[in-house]
Amino acid sequence: MYRPEIKVIDCTVRDGGLMNKWQFDDKFVKHVYNALTEAGVDYMEIGYLSSESAFDRKEYGPWKFCAEADLKRIIGDSEKKIKFSAMADIGRIDYDDIPLRSDSSLDMIRVACYVHQVDAAIALAEHCQDKGYETTINLMAVSTVGIRDLNEALEDLSKSRVPIIYLVDSFGAFYSEDIDALAKKYFERLPDKTIGVHCHNNQQLGFANTISAIINGINYLDATLYGIGRGAGNCPLELLLSFLKNPKFDVRPIVKCIEAEIFPWAKKIDWGYSVPYMTSGVLNQHPRAAMALMESENKEKITEFYDSMVNSTDSL
Amino acid sequence: MYRPEIKVIDCTVRDGGLMNKWQFDDKFVKHVYNALTEAGVDYMEIGYLSSESAFDRKEYGPWKFCAEADLKRIIGDSEKKIKFSAMADIGRIDYDDIPLRSDSSLDMIRVACYVHQVDAAIALAEHCQDKGYETTINLMAVSTVGIRDLNEALEDLSKSRVPIIYLVDSFGAFYSEDIDALAKKYFERLPDKTIGVHCHNNQQLGFANTISAIINGINYLDATLYGIGRGAGNCPLELLLSFLKNPKFDVRPIVKCIEAEIFPWAKKIDWGYSVPYMTSGVLNQHPRAAMALMESENKEKITEFYDSMVNSTDSL
Repeated sequence: MYRPEIKVIDCTVRDGGLMNKWQFDDKFVKHVYNALTEAGVDYMEIGYLSSESAFDRKEYGPWKFCAEADLKRIIGDSEKKIKFSAMADIGRIDYDDIPLRSDSSLDMIRVACYVHQVDAAIALAEHCQDKGYETTINLMAVSTVGIRDLNEALEDLSKSRVPIIYLVDSFGAFYSEDIDALAKKYFERLPDKTIGVHCHNNQQLGFANTISAIINGINYLDATLYGIGRGAGNCPLELLLSFLKNPKFDVRPIVKCIEAEIFPWAKKIDWGYSVPYMTSGVLNQHPRAAMALMESENKEKITEFYDSMVNSTDSL
Repeated sequence: MYRPEIKVIDCTVRDGGLMNKWQFDDKFVKHVYNALTEAGVDYMEIGYLSSESAFDRKEYGPWKFCAEADLKRIIGDSEKKIKFSAMADIGRIDYDDIPLRSDSSLDMIRVACYVHQVDAAIALAEHCQDKGYETTINLMAVSTVGIRDLNEALEDLSKSRVPIIYLVDSFGAFYSEDIDALAKKYFERLPDKTIGVHCHNNQQLGFANTISAIINGINYLDATLYGIGRGAGNCPLELLLSFLKNPKFDVRPIVKCIEAEIFPWAKKIDWGYSVPYMTSGVLNQHPRAAMALMESENKEKITEFYDSMVNSTDSL
């Protein structure tokens, strides 16, 4: 699939950081930065934009905040050849704490929101736009949203100045047919917008659903090295780059970085397909219960977990 | 997706056995047998049908042979409520070693062949049919077959008495668009046949490609518990049953069996997605080199492996 409009956004540090409170050391982040640059990836989402008053630096690593000094340390003295993105969650960042783009190494700010937060998300994203940033709104957990609420949110988004809207499968609940149907709806309701996709791998469909999105005309594609990310993880970047036939991409630096930096983390934290994540995905539930199980000593007690999830969903 | 014609074939023992020379003990095979029966799965492919003169029982476990005494021990005294299948490889079974179906607990024999072996496969499959078995021919590695050879093979198969023909992605090289294109071709060239699909997971597309096959009208679906199988493994049965909306299927016994029987094997043998299997899949190569690496001490040296595979493919 060669389409020059396609942009690849690597979320390794940002989404992977959900599994270790962004405690990646500089060596890790620099290697990822260099590998993505060499591989021709368009954006590196390096973390969250959060106010220092909202989270403690003793608990959270630098990529929970994306302070300019931290970004500068990663870039070093050479020219930055990849765009930096940071994600902002509604209510966790004060407008005043967002620098002007001209004072920042960030290029894009992506605002993640649930459907009931769309108005607040538009206000925040447009504020970032006015400060000079590229912006997106990433509408999360749409697998749980009723059709009227979704239509209303898309209506609001269509009227906003935010140019890029993301379809997000937060719970890893979607099949390719769901991506087909939602992509068609997003294009119909958001005729002037660029659409992006962010998939999770609960049902081993993160990559497949990203391909479905591409086939449907979606051009902003999220992925991570070796799929690292919350719970079942994300669409693996190495698979996505191998699929995209754009000659600007090179998968080899990604393989090298996985070997050097991701494998050590794979021994310390658990992400990727497992039956508990499958269970929450199939039942269209937040992965938090599955994550709690996978972080406990009971991670192999999958039948007990399956029963508890099925029972709690039946009694909704 | 509810379609009563759909049949699910579990290949846990047969394809998983490629990773341990079929050294599953009776407790394992009995648990899989009971779980599949309770789950409503249609067929259990319990192993290969091989002549005892061709392989040594000291090296290979019982499921390399599927002798009647071994099958009987698994079934025990209760009525068998699931069909048994065995796979036969061309040249590894003497016709005389195949019992009549009336003397066997096997219900189906599936003949696996490469495109140049189609005539021999038809002869063997029709021989099995004449002995009373249901039969299929599983045409392997079609991702490497030129269009004229494939058309000729399909022409031969269409004239045979074998009722079920499998589309097999032996190398895990296919994207859903390949499945779409090949399924259309198979239906066009084999108008009187039932079509089956067997996918591998090198690109995390085993399940997704099985869904594509279903959407295209393919009705015989192969899967294994937790995806156990050669190299990157297969379409995970627990995902497939969760996707199929046929009320006859129940995923819980599968989850329980994974917990009890598959997890211990997951600590001993390595199957599932990894960068070496991705590499061979993307390059449309046999997984043997990736398997050799994954079984060696160098399994994390993925960059060196990637380079060697790319170089050897470039110089084809």
